[in-house]
Amino acid sequence: MPSYTAPTKDLNFVLNDVLRVADSPIEGYSDLDQDTFSAILDEAAKIAENVTAPLNKVGDEEGCVLENGVVRTPKGFKEAFATVAEGGWMGLDMPEEYGGQGMPYVVQTAVGEMLSSANMAFNMYQGLAHGAMSAIVAHGTEQQKQTYLPPMIAGQWGGTMNLTEPHCGTDLGLMRTKAEPQEDGTYKISGQKIWISAGEHDMVDNIVHLVLAKIPGGPEGVKGISLFIVPKFLVNEDGSLGERNALSCGGLESKMGIHGNATCVMNYDGATGYLIGDLHKGMRAMFTMMNEARIGVGLQGYAQGEVAYQNALAFARDRLQGRDVTGTKNPEGPADPIIVHPDVRRNLMDQKSFVEGARALTLWGAMLNDQAHRSQDDDAEALISLLTPVIKGFLTDKGFETTVQAQQTLGGSGFTQEWGLEQFVRDARITMIYEGTNGVQSLDLVGRKLGLNGGKTLMGFFEMVKTFIKENEDNAELKEGFLDPLKAASKDLQTAGMYFVAEGMKNPNNALSGSYDFMHLFGQVCLGLMWAKMGKASLAALAEGASDTEFYQSKLVTGRYYMARQLPATKMHLARIQSGAAPVMDLAAEAF
Amino acid sequence: MPSYTAPTKDLNFVLNDVLRVADSPIEGYSDLDQDTFSAILDEAAKIAENVTAPLNKVGDEEGCVLENGVVRTPKGFKEAFATVAEGGWMGLDMPEEYGGQGMPYVVQTAVGEMLSSANMAFNMYQGLAHGAMSAIVAHGTEQQKQTYLPPMIAGQWGGTMNLTEPHCGTDLGLMRTKAEPQEDGTYKISGQKIWISAGEHDMVDNIVHLVLAKIPGGPEGVKGISLFIVPKFLVNEDGSLGERNALSCGGLESKMGIHGNATCVMNYDGATGYLIGDLHKGMRAMFTMMNEARIGVGLQGYAQGEVAYQNALAFARDRLQGRDVTGTKNPEGPADPIIVHPDVRRNLMDQKSFVEGARALTLWGAMLNDQAHRSQDDDAEALISLLTPVIKGFLTDKGFETTVQAQQTLGGSGFTQEWGLEQFVRDARITMIYEGTNGVQSLDLVGRKLGLNGGKTLMGFFEMVKTFIKENEDNAELKEGFLDPLKAASKDLQTAGMYFVAEGMKNPNNALSGSYDFMHLFGQVCLGLMWAKMGKASLAALAEGASDTEFYQSKLVTGRYYMARQLPATKMHLARIQSGAAPVMDLAAEAF
Repeated sequence: MPSYTAPTKDLNFVLNDVLRVADSPIEGYSDLDQDTFSAILDEAAKIAENVTAPLNKVGDEEGCVLENGVVRTPKGFKEAFATVAEGGWMGLDMPEEYGGQGMPYVVQTAVGEMLSSANMAFNMYQGLAHGAMSAIVAHGTEQQKQTYLPPMIAGQWGGTMNLTEPHCGTDLGLMRTKAEPQEDGTYKISGQKIWISAGEHDMVDNIVHLVLAKIPGGPEGVKGISLFIVPKFLVNEDGSLGERNALSCGGLESKMGIHGNATCVMNYDGATGYLIGDLHKGMRAMFTMMNEARIGVGLQGYAQGEVAYQNALAFARDRLQGRDVTGTKNPEGPADPIIVHPDVRRNLMDQKSFVEGARALTLWGAMLNDQAHRSQDDDAEALISLLTPVIKGFLTDKGFETTVQAQQTLGGSGFTQEWGLEQFVRDARITMIYEGTNGVQSLDLVGRKLGLNGGKTLMGFFEMVKTFIKENEDNAELKEGFLDPLKAASKDLQTAGMYFVAEGMKNPNNALSGSYDFMHLFGQVCLGLMWAKMGKASLAALAEGASDTEFYQSKLVTGRYYMARQLPATKMHLARIQSGAAPVMDLAAEAF
Repeated sequence: MPSYTAPTKDLNFVLNDVLRVADSPIEGYSDLDQDTFSAILDEAAKIAENVTAPLNKVGDEEGCVLENGVVRTPKGFKEAFATVAEGGWMGLDMPEEYGGQGMPYVVQTAVGEMLSSANMAFNMYQGLAHGAMSAIVAHGTEQQKQTYLPPMIAGQWGGTMNLTEPHCGTDLGLMRTKAEPQEDGTYKISGQKIWISAGEHDMVDNIVHLVLAKIPGGPEGVKGISLFIVPKFLVNEDGSLGERNALSCGGLESKMGIHGNATCVMNYDGATGYLIGDLHKGMRAMFTMMNEARIGVGLQGYAQGEVAYQNALAFARDRLQGRDVTGTKNPEGPADPIIVHPDVRRNLMDQKSFVEGARALTLWGAMLNDQAHRSQDDDAEALISLLTPVIKGFLTDKGFETTVQAQQTLGGSGFTQEWGLEQFVRDARITMIYEGTNGVQSLDLVGRKLGLNGGKTLMGFFEMVKTFIKENEDNAELKEGFLDPLKAASKDLQTAGMYFVAEGMKNPNNALSGSYDFMHLFGQVCLGLMWAKMGKASLAALAEGASDTEFYQSKLVTGRYYMARQLPATKMHLARIQSGAAPVMDLAAEAF
């Protein structure tokens, strides 16, 4: 069975040494001194390691079962959910006035990585409730907040997001679910939603569904969509549960992974719903939560990579096969541990250098998100909007790839269910798909985000990279190993951006054909920047005489690996982008 | 449920237009005129499409069950196995004197692709029997051939290969299974073998296990390994089945994929075995079959890519979401089919251009294998030895990636078991692991094959590419779209090879740290060469006034895509290789 050890040391390094959260002027950050943050992470680590990680395999094997309209979650899930709720983890970043802890999103993110690595399927129940809570916080009336938030934050009620229908996934304009206005101001919701994670389960007393639907006679397409609160049980004025609403789980999907999470077909048969936010502005309401949700999925991608890597590393240190070609390392044993072999190391270093870079990028993204929302900083809002599709798309593609590489480290054992690596692969796979496929992320990046504020946000990103390089170029060690490769990669990204501007004007397909490569190119530059920042922090710590020299030296070696062995991908992406639309578009659809 | 249509047209194109098999002087090839080959492929296509493909999903869902020492295969497998056997497909390339069809290996390969795409788990029963038969053909005595081959070729008996033990996979020198000589010239085999595909099942009357074991007192390590025939039932002199041998299936692995194939723990408890081949030369005997077996696995990799691509394409033509940004394509419908979107096409073109290139490379490899064995051509033997790790490693990595990309085309549906794409991903995953992990392939390539014949084989490959380019450079259309990119890619490969020679001398880890990238770089050049050859053949067919212009035009567009969008990977691989050993080796094992 696989094991999981929460990487609290590395989380602390990113938060304190690299991002220096406590020094940030963002509201609420000054409370996050090193000791406080450390204490929170240590408590969350205990939950992840001891409560939810041990349920990861059983969740995969048992899965969820639908019986008489009720979904039974795997053995142990209910008790674990109660433990997580009692610890106050459900509302870590929710407002204190409704029972939350009022912590910044960056804390939620750091804790979320651990819970997601430990048991992704389990943590999604909380994740979906969190999404629903965020919607209510952002768009609900005071009464809606008072009605729904306290029991959700206490973990007594769950929550979901309902977007997809059988004939409409990406293209929500095709939506058919109807919301018919009633005289009492409520709506009758009718339609079928699919792929609703945590749509029905036995761990909570009530489930608060947030449902996108169209009011008859409203505008066509996405402009006629509104958002509704549709609880499983209606809520009495005193907050107690009333009658059962006209909605039900019509089936569970059999899927490749995340078996422990119930993916439901939800049928709404004239269910009572309450408008949340403005009429016909449901898409906008959904979009305000999109950055958070997508950063959360990016996090899931690398979090599966992290736990997979941990198990691959343990195997590589333990498994004895062959001898180090440069000299035996384990003369008493029948063979050397496979970690001596260059190609095994190449594989492990790929995993390690990606995961650590991804962690830094995600926490930085969370910090920008806080800056945008807590300090009402429009530039931060624009920057995180630009980075969100990169975080979602690049980190899930690479996170999945990391689980596959970790599985490879184990050879044949990696293919067996016994060792558990194959579950990480199957679970990670969904992150490339849901919350907008990665192809859709690339379209969002190139089609929408590059032009944000007339391109100024993108220019600001380049300027930031340039400034960082300039300010640190006199550090020779940083320059050679980190800044020079970063400069080259950033230049490739700018060249690609200019290609889009010049050629996309002539034909939009010249830009769209390169969108996926651009997303990856951007991701490489982001991780290059993170590694340069981590390199700088490590050199500084060593210069200041930090006691844990091995930790900082390892960071430098790992960072140099990333720069030397991963960043060269930017040239490939640029070449693909510059080949333009013709290779992609020339084949007639019927000639495939 | 997914569907499968055998790509007989494309197989015919590669065999006739590109490789021109009937014109080859290889023994037996002159019989392979276009009509004969076409007829064979059409018959095999019927089996694949109608008999085995419909059992692919049921095999995955039911899996194999071990009860009282007997493995029950999924419903329908036994009947399908009988149908395949009756059609004479078991011994397609086996000697006619033992009941085979005596066809070249290239025929077996073309047919194998279809059967593997249709149902990989099912086809492995035949594949393993084929491996055992090949060993007996190559190393058995006349008596052994007469005893075992006819019933195996008839499909009445199966066969397996037994190498791995719990503590020894790649490093077979650690092997513990013992073979104790008996007075009657037989051996008593004792030990445990694991991951034995098709080790026990209910579709045949007897199973002929080929088992590697050590005779006590023999040389240490791999030099003391011999190969034995160990049948499940001993065979009487008249060929009838005698007593049950002392071997049994001790368990089945629960695995990520290929559920329809029984992966067995095999226990040998003093089982009667018969030496095959020379004493202590078991490894050599095994290696003579290695090229074939590894080409066969490379084939499995792209064959899963092929069937996955077919289903992704069908979905992309059918699914309506969004509108073509350059103008609506389906004005009567609520949206356009997603194949209009550039990034969906980019994904499909990746899949298509890889699979078609992989098919050509594999069939060329099979042809070289025939040339080596049927015409005793040492240069062909050396060349296919060089190419084998590339075919195995590159085509399975990319084949798996192709199944993942195809799954992505379907969005959320790709993650559900209902649509079946996720099974292709899970099944394809094993191809990167078994028959030597792809890391081991890259080690074989760089550590052994580059130096073959003092490097002359590698130089011969470069010379061949160069000659092809030179001979066709006056064809302007071929030059720009195909030959120029191929030339650049081939130059990258040569530069990498020279780096290995120069820096590997100083430190072998400089070469070994880049072995995986070198394997991929080599694979890209091979597929580039194949596409250049396919481009040439297509231009020639069009110039000759071929009636099916659309087919040849599609080939040219697809080939140009490969050259423009895939070959740029060579620069990335070269840069990684040239970063040398330091980034990979600098981190102490305990500092990970």
